[in-house]
Amino acid sequence: MMRFIRGLDSTMNDDYQLNLISILKHAALRFGKRRVVSKRGEEKKVTTYRDVYEDVKRLANALESLGFSAKDRIGVLSWNTLEFYELFFAVPSIGAVLLELNLRLHPEEISYVANHSEAKLIFVDSQAKEIAEKIAPKVKAKFVGIGCEDFDYTYEELLKLGDKNYEFPVIDERSACISCYTSGTTGKPKGVYYSHRAVFLHTLAVAINFSLSHRDTYLQLVPMFHANGWGIFFSATLTGAKLVFPGRYSIEKIGEVVDLIREEGVTVTAAAPSVLIPMLNYLQKENISLPNLRIFTGASAPPLSLLKGMKERGIEVIHTYGATETTPVVCVNHVIPEVEEELEEEELWELKRKQGLPMFGVEVKLMKNGIELPWDGSSVGELYMRGHWVAKSYYKDERSKDAFENGWWKSGDAATIDENGYVKIVDRFKDLIKSGGEWISSVDLENYLMAHPAVLEACVVGVPHPKWEERPLAFVVLKEEYKGKVSKEELYEHLKKRFAKWQLPDEILFVSEIPKTSVGKFNKRFLKEKYRDFYTTRNL
Amino acid sequence: MMRFIRGLDSTMNDDYQLNLISILKHAALRFGKRRVVSKRGEEKKVTTYRDVYEDVKRLANALESLGFSAKDRIGVLSWNTLEFYELFFAVPSIGAVLLELNLRLHPEEISYVANHSEAKLIFVDSQAKEIAEKIAPKVKAKFVGIGCEDFDYTYEELLKLGDKNYEFPVIDERSACISCYTSGTTGKPKGVYYSHRAVFLHTLAVAINFSLSHRDTYLQLVPMFHANGWGIFFSATLTGAKLVFPGRYSIEKIGEVVDLIREEGVTVTAAAPSVLIPMLNYLQKENISLPNLRIFTGASAPPLSLLKGMKERGIEVIHTYGATETTPVVCVNHVIPEVEEELEEEELWELKRKQGLPMFGVEVKLMKNGIELPWDGSSVGELYMRGHWVAKSYYKDERSKDAFENGWWKSGDAATIDENGYVKIVDRFKDLIKSGGEWISSVDLENYLMAHPAVLEACVVGVPHPKWEERPLAFVVLKEEYKGKVSKEELYEHLKKRFAKWQLPDEILFVSEIPKTSVGKFNKRFLKEKYRDFYTTRNL
Repeated sequence: MMRFIRGLDSTMNDDYQLNLISILKHAALRFGKRRVVSKRGEEKKVTTYRDVYEDVKRLANALESLGFSAKDRIGVLSWNTLEFYELFFAVPSIGAVLLELNLRLHPEEISYVANHSEAKLIFVDSQAKEIAEKIAPKVKAKFVGIGCEDFDYTYEELLKLGDKNYEFPVIDERSACISCYTSGTTGKPKGVYYSHRAVFLHTLAVAINFSLSHRDTYLQLVPMFHANGWGIFFSATLTGAKLVFPGRYSIEKIGEVVDLIREEGVTVTAAAPSVLIPMLNYLQKENISLPNLRIFTGASAPPLSLLKGMKERGIEVIHTYGATETTPVVCVNHVIPEVEEELEEEELWELKRKQGLPMFGVEVKLMKNGIELPWDGSSVGELYMRGHWVAKSYYKDERSKDAFENGWWKSGDAATIDENGYVKIVDRFKDLIKSGGEWISSVDLENYLMAHPAVLEACVVGVPHPKWEERPLAFVVLKEEYKGKVSKEELYEHLKKRFAKWQLPDEILFVSEIPKTSVGKFNKRFLKEKYRDFYTTRNL
Repeated sequence: MMRFIRGLDSTMNDDYQLNLISILKHAALRFGKRRVVSKRGEEKKVTTYRDVYEDVKRLANALESLGFSAKDRIGVLSWNTLEFYELFFAVPSIGAVLLELNLRLHPEEISYVANHSEAKLIFVDSQAKEIAEKIAPKVKAKFVGIGCEDFDYTYEELLKLGDKNYEFPVIDERSACISCYTSGTTGKPKGVYYSHRAVFLHTLAVAINFSLSHRDTYLQLVPMFHANGWGIFFSATLTGAKLVFPGRYSIEKIGEVVDLIREEGVTVTAAAPSVLIPMLNYLQKENISLPNLRIFTGASAPPLSLLKGMKERGIEVIHTYGATETTPVVCVNHVIPEVEEELEEEELWELKRKQGLPMFGVEVKLMKNGIELPWDGSSVGELYMRGHWVAKSYYKDERSKDAFENGWWKSGDAATIDENGYVKIVDRFKDLIKSGGEWISSVDLENYLMAHPAVLEACVVGVPHPKWEERPLAFVVLKEEYKGKVSKEELYEHLKKRFAKWQLPDEILFVSEIPKTSVGKFNKRFLKEKYRDFYTTRNL
């Protein structure tokens, strides 16, 4: 067992607390004139950190005036707006907990989350009004409209009500500040309640690992209701980067996002491959390069074609990895010079597709049947994590005992770690395809399919098979210009360059789109369910 | 009074401790092959983070085997070496306190520090052997020789004795890890005992504010026995920068430092102006540019000629500010784009000479007669500081009650803060010259004198005057090539461009050098004492 030692008393101010509000206060005092830009539809608003801080004081004071206080859970239903950003500071600043409500979940699930957390108040952006109206009858909370007057209060009247000379209390850093529920593919969502301490330390880690500075302009593309929008806007605030909030945007009109990047001189952003793939398509069609932009990606592994294609457009794409349970960033794919020296070009690209190196503050290990596996780049085990911003339980949830062990979180991800410490996620444990006693990685097949120039998206699941237990079934979306021009056989020829015959999907189906979960991942549960009988009923 | 609130319990691992050893462990696991270079005289040793971590495990285990344990103070007498760096991790890793012993202090003072801290063991580098021999009879500690066999143990035998599979204990983050005594210009040195928590958070702040990354190579020029060598090597380790330790180097052979920078591809370093002024001289003489280097400076304000001259050599010099009591970095001079837009070129240079913006984690205020002054860029008050890495007392020292107040440290520095938050140190309060009821800043006079092309160094002190209470007296060192060619009158003409007649020094004395304190600052106390009667006895 670990020894625990208390040493000599220091002479430092060790009771000084890590509080979220001090991040914004710092920006207001040191970067007061730095701009914060926010879009809502066609309208663009420009403000400064100094003014945002004043708004947040008014909001905090108004919330207390209305009787809200420490420990209260206060929900938000919003796209990526300035007001959502202000609430990320105002709600925790009085010791209350900001509850992220995922707009992409079914209203039943949103209501479940609001009720499980016992939310007393919910802020609703005008663009999410319809969702709020659906859940209103099912929850006890009062509602505040942002840019709409259909609810109990309006955001605008709260700003008027509050005092800009409000003095923030000091919050014990171990108190919860924000909550996000996992959009679990099985069962009800599970609550993660982040502490001020965890989010603050994560903010510092992301600032360092994403190399953010006061010369950057950061665009918030990751939904802020999903794992703190990866927490990057906190880090950007801390370092004095200019901020840009796009409001609601859509993949179909990705050109508008590209326009915003160019108008505001965005230097850093982050998004899942499901956003970046159409963005690259657009850049290629319009022949646009963005040489001052770096993009962090995650949620699923970026296809090689995405990394290389973006590079041709001047854009560095850096792979990261994390989860709701981890605040969320754990790994960032930094290439260490001494490691780069040892690699050929194609090996280097393969390295960049790995999830990367764990940031300081998080420990990782690979476990299989209770035994820790070596870091040899080939042993596959479940990835366990532990650290300052890794959860140690779910909120009031019996399932905690299955997911956590001695302070370690069992991620459910099957991974390898190489001798240089790079983590590679092979698959979700439950998505590994068990074929005749061997394991096939659905992720590997998908990625290699997506490396084919004609393929926009590819998803592979294991479905029951009378002889082999499970066999892979592939779903492929072709790019517009290749539709009807590329055959199944051509894709099989492509796969054979990399995979053994027994690893190939028994069938490849061309589809118009791949169903996604609320956080933009392939909905494999849905596909497995729908195609459950595909191999058992067909004529073999 | 501040309200203190404890909110809802989080679900995070908030008891996970901030421990110094985890910084090195992180480097060993993620940047294991990254190089660490160390010079000792002509000899150059190259190792890696992985191997350094193994050495540190052996050292920690050896210290415990010899009976040392938590709370013990263990001193080090060394220049900037790899072994000193290893001890910065090994000693705190067992809960003990590493005591920095300032080689430039008088042996009497070193003995005082060792005895006040009750050091049980002192490590001595072979290049500091003579100093150790002088203090040995006055202290109770045992000694370990590094690269020499004249003491109780050798470093090398400790490494052999220790087990590389040693498992580190967890240390309560509020425990002391390192101690540094202020080289007070008045009275005995005062002890500051840094906690793991304070140093860790400072490490993150410096990593962010110095933009350190795994692509950097950091050269440790600031003496490591002086306020943790500004703590930068911890930040460089955390971010995976390559490290270079120069061993003992001298201003007289500054060319050797420049050679090391070029050989190792150094991208970041830090040093006081007293080191950088001769370095710039050398670069100019040899016509060398170093376009990939950025240098952080502090301890005293850099003359404008230094900032501009380095810029011409391709080198960005960034002004920082701090003190032993603050771990030490508090301010870094970042220029915010929105502030830069408002300034003419010369105003921008003046801005860059300010001490800069406080880093997150430290609050500042200006106090005068118990009243807080506005941030208007002109009100001069004493700078107070409070935060995660600011001391709240001295160790077992009665003088604490004068230096600290409600968690704030009273720095003794006279400063202004402008509306954008930039701190400018006008002078030490005690160095302000009180002339006929008005204050004259000795620092302003010095800086303007040093802006003259012929002036290498200038120091101004206030000395008693029969009529005006105090009047300024200036000491000037001319550059070699200007000696005998520049007159007092020419310097007066230069000063008159900026200063009113009553602000001019009554006398300018040409000297061959300006006496320095143990940390490289002008020794004004010595000059004031020596020239105490200069104005009162001369024929007026």
